Amino acid sequence: MSQLPSIRLKKNEERRLRGGHLWIFSNEVDIEAMPLKSFGAGDLAIVESSRGQVLGIAYVNPASLICGRLLTRDAHAAIDRAFFERRLTRALRLRERLFSRPFYRLTYGESDGLPGVVIDRFDDVFVVQTNTAGMERLQEPLVAAIEALFAPRAIVAKNTSSLRALEGLDTYTSILRGTLDGPIQIEENGARFLVDPISGQKTGWFFDHRESRAVVAKLSRGLRVLDLFSYTGAWGVQAALAGAASVECVDGSEAALALAAENGRLNGVLEKMRLIKDDAFEFLKRAREERQRYDLVVLDPPALIKRKKDVGQGIEAYRRLNQAAIQVLAPGGILVSASCSFHLRWETLHDLLRAVARALDRHVVFFGRGGQAADHPVHPAIPETDYLKTFFCYIGESL
Amino acid sequence: MSQLPSIRLKKNEERRLRGGHLWIFSNEVDIEAMPLKSFGAGDLAIVESSRGQVLGIAYVNPASLICGRLLTRDAHAAIDRAFFERRLTRALRLRERLFSRPFYRLTYGESDGLPGVVIDRFDDVFVVQTNTAGMERLQEPLVAAIEALFAPRAIVAKNTSSLRALEGLDTYTSILRGTLDGPIQIEENGARFLVDPISGQKTGWFFDHRESRAVVAKLSRGLRVLDLFSYTGAWGVQAALAGAASVECVDGSEAALALAAENGRLNGVLEKMRLIKDDAFEFLKRAREERQRYDLVVLDPPALIKRKKDVGQGIEAYRRLNQAAIQVLAPGGILVSASCSFHLRWETLHDLLRAVARALDRHVVFFGRGGQAADHPVHPAIPETDYLKTFFCYIGESL
Repeated sequence: MSQLPSIRLKKNEERRLRGGHLWIFSNEVDIEAMPLKSFGAGDLAIVESSRGQVLGIAYVNPASLICGRLLTRDAHAAIDRAFFERRLTRALRLRERLFSRPFYRLTYGESDGLPGVVIDRFDDVFVVQTNTAGMERLQEPLVAAIEALFAPRAIVAKNTSSLRALEGLDTYTSILRGTLDGPIQIEENGARFLVDPISGQKTGWFFDHRESRAVVAKLSRGLRVLDLFSYTGAWGVQAALAGAASVECVDGSEAALALAAENGRLNGVLEKMRLIKDDAFEFLKRAREERQRYDLVVLDPPALIKRKKDVGQGIEAYRRLNQAAIQVLAPGGILVSASCSFHLRWETLHDLLRAVARALDRHVVFFGRGGQAADHPVHPAIPETDYLKTFFCYIGESL
Repeated sequence: MSQLPSIRLKKNEERRLRGGHLWIFSNEVDIEAMPLKSFGAGDLAIVESSRGQVLGIAYVNPASLICGRLLTRDAHAAIDRAFFERRLTRALRLRERLFSRPFYRLTYGESDGLPGVVIDRFDDVFVVQTNTAGMERLQEPLVAAIEALFAPRAIVAKNTSSLRALEGLDTYTSILRGTLDGPIQIEENGARFLVDPISGQKTGWFFDHRESRAVVAKLSRGLRVLDLFSYTGAWGVQAALAGAASVECVDGSEAALALAAENGRLNGVLEKMRLIKDDAFEFLKRAREERQRYDLVVLDPPALIKRKKDVGQGIEAYRRLNQAAIQVLAPGGILVSASCSFHLRWETLHDLLRAVARALDRHVVFFGRGGQAADHPVHPAIPETDYLKTFFCYIGESL
């Protein structure tokens, strides 16, 4: 691929890449040696250190703060269908070790050597989310590789992330191969769910909490369970199926609750479930006033901190939610407190839970910690690949 | 308990206790108001802030750097058999939610409101490890509470920790109640093991890795597994039972390997196992020279950092071990890298693995992270309760 143009980094700016990261920020590029603006959004380029050492091949986007992402450290690689087949095969090998059924995140961005794209597999339906101009330009060989390896029923492009705006991309949903009519059925931890890749959130399903949901299910036998921000009932249905005495699912979306009801019916547990359309804060306030008590509360809000500047305000929202959730717990109850906000770090949520419990004069211990499921592996050099945090809290009277 | 003497803290030194911690350091006590040396090792005392606010009841030890540990925030509580029954009942409630079989750490020190002691339950045999003068003085009502609640076959005091020297205590092993003749049989994740509370390490068994061992077992089917620092084969036997193609257990102790062999036999998997008495470094060096390759390596060394001043040297030992372990992994292999050193923090082991993989030009991702099992809950205000770290690494050729 010697015909590719090069970008050259400033002095010492190759260190992050050498440490394992795959991103190049625009202020690290020596634009005097090679102007970034000579590149089109998504063009491929050879990346060189200030001393001319070749670091690999990246796609670049002069319009983005993250102006390049390394696709390979092999400067001679062709970025073609065969390249994507190798990447997919490698990712598949890990998933097939981990899961006996074909429902998982097949590739998770940078961690699987495919920066800027994730692919969820729902058996023979593949949903691709592309977030960068570089991967958008490579969509065709990527989709051809999926087709070659899996002969799928359908491949959906669910390119609806707000991150695309940072790359100058518009948003769209499109069936790239095959056909799809209505929701499809998947399995998670032995429960069945309907997933709508076209109109659902993100790819239609959140595989990332799979392992934490299995823990909740195991704990739920005989318990009164409250599932806040329930979406389509992934936590609540699994708890009900595992023998919860009752499950209340609270969500602000009528459509999500309608699907949660269908999922309850599909698993034969609808009669145990109560579906409540409400704001979580309002619901908790009322439950507390009415002295409702639960044995296990799942608090899995959407990202309350989307940008770094929202951290202070977001922490306050997490604090209020966790406090209100603890206040409706019966003594010896379990709080499953999650955050998918990358900008809320583990230690911050840890300390927030400690402080809230002390302020309420409760004794709290963490009997478990859940991260992303194994099909969302963390790249140790890329903190941004590590976003999901769950604390399993056992909460009792003060000692 | 108004007849108890008081210790008074210096100004603002009540903050750690108010934040949830249970420890008092000797330099935080106002010894002019109340000399610490007027107390005997293990005496009970009311703890007061500098302004005379009562913070609870602690046991104290003027000879220890940690000169007091809070037993309760209720200054009127009697520290008697009934007190210990309440603490044990509360701890039991969590364990019974978590485990269907009576094999677990029943109480885990400060996290269960019983500072300075841990109790492991092997069905009807209870092994108590006491590390402080205060708990040593309270051993009788504690043991009476265990007796009253569980009517056990035996209660063993396994008071052999080197920490006891810091409290001016000698070490001893003693059967406090009942009788015990030879090893007992326990279950973990469906496998059976012989445990010797009298002559084994610590209580005879390490429940703390239970959940990570279940993950390894699930992954092991068909794989060539290497279990370094195998001790009595907890990881290796479970991997073999779950369908590993072969398991090599390496340990420096002949006695541990003999018990590992018995455990292999007990589970009908001995013919798959190879037991190798060797130093892990030496073994890895030879395996590499002989081009041995494994699909999954468990690296679970004893604490290589026992004191803060050993951190630098300890990190180097972890680095060398992890590097050598990666070098005997087949492509796409799995490294399960653990550390039970409190002084080696999560982020240090994380970065060590990143750096070692880069130095060897491998691509590593973490597809899971394991902490202490749920019967070793973390007290969020007491970092010292959080010591165990395991990274599940998927390691392949450089991308």
